[in-house]
Parts: sequence; structure tokens; C-alpha cells
Amino acid sequence: MNRQITLAARPVGYPQESDFALVETPVPEPGPGQVLVRSQWLSLDPYMRGRMSTTRSYAKATEIGDVMTGQVVGEVVESHDGRFSPGDLVVGQLGWQEYAVARGGALRKIDPRVAPPQAWLHVLGATGLTAYFGLFDVGRPSPGDTVVVSGAAGAVGQITGQLARIAGCRTVGIAGGPEKVADLTEEYGYDAGIDYKADDVNARLKELCPHGVDLYFDNVGGALSETVFRRLALGARIVICGQISQYNLTEPELAPRHLGFLIVFRARMQGFLVSDYAHRFDQAIRRLATLLGEGRLRYREDVTDGLEHAPEAFIGMLNGANRGKTLVKLT
Amino acid sequence: MNRQITLAARPVGYPQESDFALVETPVPEPGPGQVLVRSQWLSLDPYMRGRMSTTRSYAKATEIGDVMTGQVVGEVVESHDGRFSPGDLVVGQLGWQEYAVARGGALRKIDPRVAPPQAWLHVLGATGLTAYFGLFDVGRPSPGDTVVVSGAAGAVGQITGQLARIAGCRTVGIAGGPEKVADLTEEYGYDAGIDYKADDVNARLKELCPHGVDLYFDNVGGALSETVFRRLALGARIVICGQISQYNLTEPELAPRHLGFLIVFRARMQGFLVSDYAHRFDQAIRRLATLLGEGRLRYREDVTDGLEHAPEAFIGMLNGANRGKTLVKLT
Repeated sequence: MNRQITLAARPVGYPQESDFALVETPVPEPGPGQVLVRSQWLSLDPYMRGRMSTTRSYAKATEIGDVMTGQVVGEVVESHDGRFSPGDLVVGQLGWQEYAVARGGALRKIDPRVAPPQAWLHVLGATGLTAYFGLFDVGRPSPGDTVVVSGAAGAVGQITGQLARIAGCRTVGIAGGPEKVADLTEEYGYDAGIDYKADDVNARLKELCPHGVDLYFDNVGGALSETVFRRLALGARIVICGQISQYNLTEPELAPRHLGFLIVFRARMQGFLVSDYAHRFDQAIRRLATLLGEGRLRYREDVTDGLEHAPEAFIGMLNGANRGKTLVKLT
Repeated sequence: MNRQITLAARPVGYPQESDFALVETPVPEPGPGQVLVRSQWLSLDPYMRGRMSTTRSYAKATEIGDVMTGQVVGEVVESHDGRFSPGDLVVGQLGWQEYAVARGGALRKIDPRVAPPQAWLHVLGATGLTAYFGLFDVGRPSPGDTVVVSGAAGAVGQITGQLARIAGCRTVGIAGGPEKVADLTEEYGYDAGIDYKADDVNARLKELCPHGVDLYFDNVGGALSETVFRRLALGARIVICGQISQYNLTEPELAPRHLGFLIVFRARMQGFLVSDYAHRFDQAIRRLATLLGEGRLRYREDVTDGLEHAPEAFIGMLNGANRGKTLVKLT
């Protein structure tokens, strides 16, 4: 049988476990051109919260009863596509389930000699690519820039900080809680860390960024971002990667609406989606793999065992309970 | 005697006439290297409101008792700088006063055969340059783009719309009141106008911009901008030129703080200051003068007579009472 996690109800505020259902269906049969994959690892990411709602966004909402969207690494079990053979490891948007069929064109082979299979979901996958294109293509760092990252100990944040340092920048990470903040400097090479739950963020930024923030890579949004906006340098760039502080609000938070700070600092604020860079994924993965091979990129995984615990792990991540990249190991 | 308007008090909310003082001082004597200018025209601009407050900004606040900041066109009366002779017409940051001395380096000669003297304060001055660099350098329009301008019948807006049309764009202007909205299409060549005081702006944008807004040139900010943000096209650019709706608030307006729309539309929002482009003013003025000479740039002036009425005209402009570029003719 195939176990799946489906959307049972649209969450109001933070998702509850009752918004998900664990269902069993027969293992699907691959049709012509299709490949049957047994999932090994499932990536859990904040964007999934958006798919659970019908609010206008860049992608269609998941329907009630549909399998939750998600990227998976798995092993080919049966293939009707000449490019794949049983035993191949592949990555694809296969959803929260133990088996899936997909067209061969929707799968990408991965090489477990370069990095362990699950790394192709983070440092060599969508997470690493998000950090790479967001930082370099949108943020355009120069050596000597002071780069501030929010959600700095999260999946994207941990890679972003390291890439910025490799690009010759000073890096300041913002995270919540002493363990994550310790990871920033000890694991991910940030020059300094700020604990937004305990520190006076404005005072710390003033001290750590005496010439202002040249590049702010934002995964969080909300009041935290507004504090960073006050400390921008002339010509600052703000990369809007995520706004996790806002995803689970039932009513939007209100804030001063004055965008005049963009004039004062001649600043640029820009959003992006990693999928727009698909034509350059191979190039970027090659570069990330080289850095990884040279031992210049470290990462921390937060692993949950068993598909049945995916909802709990997902809810935890939205609450900031994860330490590093949130993954589910399917057994 | 020299009549001057000085800052008498820091305004709370909209400035009052009592925040200004009319004072008389002796006409100043030009020292070595200095030039004495008799003012003919004074430009009134929204940025001046910022100088009246001590809120952190890109320029120092005017001190109480100091002459109000402002750009002026005037005639050289006496010159101790070899580059200027009595009778020359010049433009400079000479303030709200009838006479001023300045270093020669702070003045620029203008040619009244190209355009009337006061035009060097708007279409061939800071106003035109603001439209030019904001639209082309920050906004980067392409032919076929749909360009929306707020404050479209104002000094910068009237030029921006015409430049965008010359660049091959469709142009939609937003202004307040039937006269200004009529000017948009009849005088300034906008393809369509929206009256934010009378129309359902969202519905009108939907109808006029069926493929979304590619470039939003914002002079106004606030709730109006948030309506435009909902109608962006993929890859939209938002030029933050001014935020006049916010300048006179005693408490900041509150609005939903979610910046996720920048991700959804992969949009870029950027502020700028025209003074950063000083090294390219000559080039831009040459181009604007060519367009003007070809009859491809029209403008409307809103002229008040007499320095003593400058505060009233300025307050009127902040309230949207002006129709076109606000100027004071000094007699």
C-alpha cells in the first residue's frame, strides 16, 4: 500500500494536525513514459503553508483531499522512460507520500557519490538554489558588504550566510533562541548572531553594522524587518525570500505604511522565486557541489522519522522549532 | 531690502501659515568669488516638507529662523566670479528670498532661448530630471509596458507620463478631481486617467491594465499604492519617487505589513534621489530640451504671484490644490 498525507481542512492560523489526513491507497501503476518512485526523503518548507490556503499566490492551492505538495528524493522502482532504471536515485515534486508516479521529464537523477541523497533536497536542491539565486542574482553582494540574514539558522539562511561570506561579505545572522544563535557563528560561519527573542535587535544591529546594512536577505518579514530597514546603508538591497512571520496570521499585522526609507537609503527591495531560475539550476548545483566538496559549506538537518509524523514536523518548523533543514525520513 | 520666508515653527501635521515668517534684511553683499542674484521664480516642491521636520532623512533639517530651502531662477546683479556677468540668468538652490549670494560653482547658467526661465525649474530642472532618472534608470521601461503614475497631474507626474509614452509604453495616470484627471489625457498624453477621489481604483486598474501594471511610478504612497500593488504584473518595477500622502501625518498610517506581493509578482521596489545623478544632468537636460523643442513635452504651471504668498501656495500644493508645477513669481 501507499501511505499519503492529504489536506483534510484549510488551516485557520497555524495549521493543526487535524488539517492533515493519513490515507492509504494502492501503490500506483506507472503508465507509458512514467516512472514509479519509492520516496526516501521528504523536504518540508514554509512555502507549503501558502498552498494550504486559497489566498492569491504564485501557485495554485492544494485542493482538500489532495496529497500535500513537496519535494522528495526517492529510488526508481519501475521505469517506462529510457532515461531511468530501477535503483536510480531521483528528485522530484512527488508530494507527501511513500510512492509516486511521474513523467520522466519531471524527475532529475542525483548522484549519491557527490552528497548523501537528502542533501539534494537542501544544499544541492531547492534550498541551496534559493539561497544562491536570491543572494547573488537579486542581492548582488560585493566584497566588504555587510549582509544581514533573517531566519539565519533555517534551511535557506544557513546556506545564505555561508555563500555571503565566501563572496567576501561580513555576515550577521538573526535567529530565535540560544541554540540557533550559537549555530550561526559556530556552524555556519556568521561573523555575529542576534537573538531576536532576547536581544534588542536595533541596538545590536547598530553595534554590529556601524556602517549600515548593505544587503538584507529576508526570510521572516514583519516587525523584525522593519527594525532592519532602519539600519540600512545607502544603496542597500533587500531580498524578499520569505515572510514566514506572516504566513499563519488570521488578520494581517499592521505597520506604518511609509516606504520613504527606500528613498532615504536609495534602497532596492525585490522578491523572487527560485523556479524562475530553472534554466540555470545545473550551473548553480555544480558550483554548490564544488563548495560542498571543498568543505566550505556546512549544513544541519532536522530529521523526523516516518511519514505519519510529517504534519507535526511541519507545524514545528512554522513555529521555529526546527534547527536546520526540516526533513522527513520515510521508512 | 531683501524679503525672505523663514521657518518660524516646526509644523505638526499640515503646515500652517504661522509656521512661516516673512522677514526683511539688507540685500547681501557678494564677497570674493560670489555672485549676487535677484530671484525671479521660486520652485515649490513636496520635499520641502521634509526639511521642516527633524525626522531622519537624506538631508539636514532647516533650522528655525533659517530661510526655507528652494530652487530659484534669477538674474545676476553683481558678480565676483568670471563665469557670470550681470544680466545672466542662473538657477540655484537660493531659498525662498528675493536676493541671494552664492558661490559661482553653486549656480548654473540657463538659456532663455531654449525655454522660458521658469521652465528651468521644472521640465528642464529638478522636476524633469526626477522624472527622467526615476523612470528610465530606476524603472527601466520597455515598449509595451503598462506604466501607472500616481500624482500623475503633478509636476513630476505630468513629465513622467509623457516620457513613458515616448518610450513606447501605455500610460495610466492617477490624480484627484475631474480637472486634473481631464488634464491627464488632454494635456499630458496619458492613455487613461483614474480619479482616486471618485473612482473605484482597483476596478479601474483591472479594466485599464488587463495584463497588470509593469511599472508603477509612485509619488503618493499609502492606501493608493497598496491598491496598485494588487494589480502588478510579473516582473513589475515600483519606483518610489515620493510619498506625499504620508508627509503630513502626525501618526503613521497603519497597513498590512506583508511584503509577500513582491515574491508573488517577482517585483522590484526601489527608491532614488535625483541628486545622485548630478553627473548626468547635462546629458538629460539636453534630451529633455530636444523633446521640448520638438513639441513632444507639454507642461502646465500653477503660478502664484509674490513671495509673501509662497507659504499659502506651498500648503495648497501639499493638499493637492495645485494643477501642474507649483511656482512663485517674484516681483
